[in-house]
Amino acid sequence: MFKSITNRVKMSQLCHSSITASRINLMDLGNHYSYPLTPSGSVESINVSTRKTIKQAIFEKITTITKAGPQLEPSPFYVCDLGELKRQLGLWNQVLPFVKPYYAVKCNPNAKFVETLIKFGNVGFDCASLDEIRTVCHIYESLGYSTADFKDNVIYANPVKPVSHLLYANNKNINLTTVDSIEEVEKIAKFTNGRMNVLIRITTDDSTATCPLSVKFGADLRYSCQIVQRCLDLGIRIRGIAFHCGSGFKDPSTLIKAVSDSRKLWDHINTRQYEDCDVLDVGGGFSKDSFLEPAVVLRNELLEKFGNRINDGSIKVISELGRFLTASVYTLTTNVIGVRNELDSNKVRVYLNDGLYGNLNCILYDHQEVEPVVTTSAGNFVYHDAEEREPNKRQYSLWGPTCDGLDCVVKKTQLSHHVQCGDWISFENCGAYTNAAATTFNGFTNEFECIYVDSEI
Amino acid sequence: MFKSITNRVKMSQLCHSSITASRINLMDLGNHYSYPLTPSGSVESINVSTRKTIKQAIFEKITTITKAGPQLEPSPFYVCDLGELKRQLGLWNQVLPFVKPYYAVKCNPNAKFVETLIKFGNVGFDCASLDEIRTVCHIYESLGYSTADFKDNVIYANPVKPVSHLLYANNKNINLTTVDSIEEVEKIAKFTNGRMNVLIRITTDDSTATCPLSVKFGADLRYSCQIVQRCLDLGIRIRGIAFHCGSGFKDPSTLIKAVSDSRKLWDHINTRQYEDCDVLDVGGGFSKDSFLEPAVVLRNELLEKFGNRINDGSIKVISELGRFLTASVYTLTTNVIGVRNELDSNKVRVYLNDGLYGNLNCILYDHQEVEPVVTTSAGNFVYHDAEEREPNKRQYSLWGPTCDGLDCVVKKTQLSHHVQCGDWISFENCGAYTNAAATTFNGFTNEFECIYVDSEI
Repeated sequence: MFKSITNRVKMSQLCHSSITASRINLMDLGNHYSYPLTPSGSVESINVSTRKTIKQAIFEKITTITKAGPQLEPSPFYVCDLGELKRQLGLWNQVLPFVKPYYAVKCNPNAKFVETLIKFGNVGFDCASLDEIRTVCHIYESLGYSTADFKDNVIYANPVKPVSHLLYANNKNINLTTVDSIEEVEKIAKFTNGRMNVLIRITTDDSTATCPLSVKFGADLRYSCQIVQRCLDLGIRIRGIAFHCGSGFKDPSTLIKAVSDSRKLWDHINTRQYEDCDVLDVGGGFSKDSFLEPAVVLRNELLEKFGNRINDGSIKVISELGRFLTASVYTLTTNVIGVRNELDSNKVRVYLNDGLYGNLNCILYDHQEVEPVVTTSAGNFVYHDAEEREPNKRQYSLWGPTCDGLDCVVKKTQLSHHVQCGDWISFENCGAYTNAAATTFNGFTNEFECIYVDSEI
Repeated sequence: MFKSITNRVKMSQLCHSSITASRINLMDLGNHYSYPLTPSGSVESINVSTRKTIKQAIFEKITTITKAGPQLEPSPFYVCDLGELKRQLGLWNQVLPFVKPYYAVKCNPNAKFVETLIKFGNVGFDCASLDEIRTVCHIYESLGYSTADFKDNVIYANPVKPVSHLLYANNKNINLTTVDSIEEVEKIAKFTNGRMNVLIRITTDDSTATCPLSVKFGADLRYSCQIVQRCLDLGIRIRGIAFHCGSGFKDPSTLIKAVSDSRKLWDHINTRQYEDCDVLDVGGGFSKDSFLEPAVVLRNELLEKFGNRINDGSIKVISELGRFLTASVYTLTTNVIGVRNELDSNKVRVYLNDGLYGNLNCILYDHQEVEPVVTTSAGNFVYHDAEEREPNKRQYSLWGPTCDGLDCVVKKTQLSHHVQCGDWISFENCGAYTNAAATTFNGFTNEFECIYVDSEI
């Protein structure tokens, strides 16, 4: 099922290729595409080599915990594969080399992850609050960068900003933010003396997204024109347009409309404002398993509508990438704290030490479905060891550790192996919107060890 | 709408009254009942005197924040009215004086709140994890109590326990827990050398509850008998029965069935076990605004089924009270960080600095509906100041501070006053399952100031 990779992209290859404004399609891209594709053209979630690296890390960690004995609390832990991160960045830069990723820190605010991205270079940061701006600035500074070096790599991309956060950003010389209302423009004018520049966030038709955003943010074109006028009245510089098609959007035509609307508003602003726009923020919402089609649609549409500006370098196109850069990078491994065999049936309830109030809050907040991978069975390490599957499959339900009946991780599934109390179950693709919103409900911890590996080394 | 109270219960009155096994009904209770009742027999949520105390605290806090200027982040804050807590305890002890409350720490793990309950006396603690046990034990110890003094006041009431947590409880001499499976009994036997006693948690029909629990926990009577046998085989002492009708249950007849089932299993255990059972845990799920009817049903049923044992003192009846003791005690006040007047309509979007990822996670996890109270309007303090209402009401939606479209606090409401950026909005009845599961998603804080007042002083 998982094809091997013979020609992986290395970090040295992550430089921008030259761009022509000609349209490309998925087949063109496939010809020189170095990632394993499924028959439908999507990218395989996790390949064999990556899994081997992660498997080794999980094995070593579980061995260490087991040796420590039952007194040690066997907390859930993550394995973060920086090799997978490199490949995701490489994939993005192959398909959309003229769109600079700005990592959406909210997706997974892990400091080492942010530091790694800074070291990789050519990645900016989308911050949603004072604390995220502070985190990113501190890491830049600890690596020896001055504010002048990195300030253009940080965008305060929350259309509604508490005044105290806005003042902090302004004091740190972060001078690009998004707005979608006249009131926000007035707030910026009042508190930053016109130093903060803005992108006008327009609405998109994100009705097909798993997590739609336009219900909360974005201005339609008519209202956007009023915002433009207010900016001009108050002397706020408009740097360009931002849109977001919603996390996990499914209809690539949404992108066509959004780019087209952006172009209309872009032209409108440029006829009104002394300085031309120079930034287009195309948002995020991409996921690894359905990346290529929308990415190619976006590429084609950007080249169609903004090709000349992209080629002459007078526009900076940026994206707010979260899930795409993190989901497949992190594997979560949880401990089985209890098992209950239902009376007179083949049903088994499995209780884990992580759940909807912990790292798996994504099930509730993010509508994510997670897939359990039995990692140890009766103490034996069986991670993706399909050959030892039991012939008779039972029906399992998986539950979190809290006293809340809502805390159900998987209602009904079959597991590859039988599990008992003390065994471990992993969840791959768990890096996006997971630990970012874990709680301490019922007194369970929300601080977890993260083991870093690199499947590209 | 809010009646004044002329005869409030003081803490000195919280002693147990003598009990007779005769049945009582709601009308009997009403004759000597000192709380304001609505025509339907429910208790008023918040009375005038309480509100005055809370209002003063909110006013002072906002005044302080406003004086500090816009650089200060105006975080959300709580006002905790310990007078209201006293009244809730008094109400419980009036209606169910023979049922000792064990506070469900998970509901609101505020350390000062736990300390206050210890100081009040006659309250135990329902802990769900190692951390909650540690918190409660540390507070007891800091107040000069020895483990021998308080160990019977702590129950580890999570039917599924991580081994490391079980070992901790055992080492702290906490020796009462709940079980609902044979596997858990075997775990206890293996790791505590039979020192941990158990209550068998039975299922209830909690299908009418806002947060049903029996989907996750509880054993039916037939399975319970098998658990009993396994306890006897392994030398685990069964102290009695536990049930929980689900948080916010609506059908009091559920209680009748649960008490009746408890009696059947109780008798079964007593015929099998050398030592008689002596603890019945009647769970929680009560809320202030629908308390009296189910409480009287429970009282009558307990006296019917366990009256003799209650009167001769050979049974300890305990309850797991969370929402009932905390909800009305805490008022949350949040700051308006942004306002957006929709184009060509009377609709206004209001963005708050708290939401579904913060203290108002109860909306998602707990199915709670919250009611906004405009606290300042254009900077003027108008908390429950109905006389200054605007004649023309607009349609408001209220949103949290994160970038997630799901983060909607109230979809559609009318507010008593117009609000603008910088104003404050309060939410009463926000003490249950709120800050207990607040997150730092998007970099917003989950640590908030809590101001303590006492409307009984």
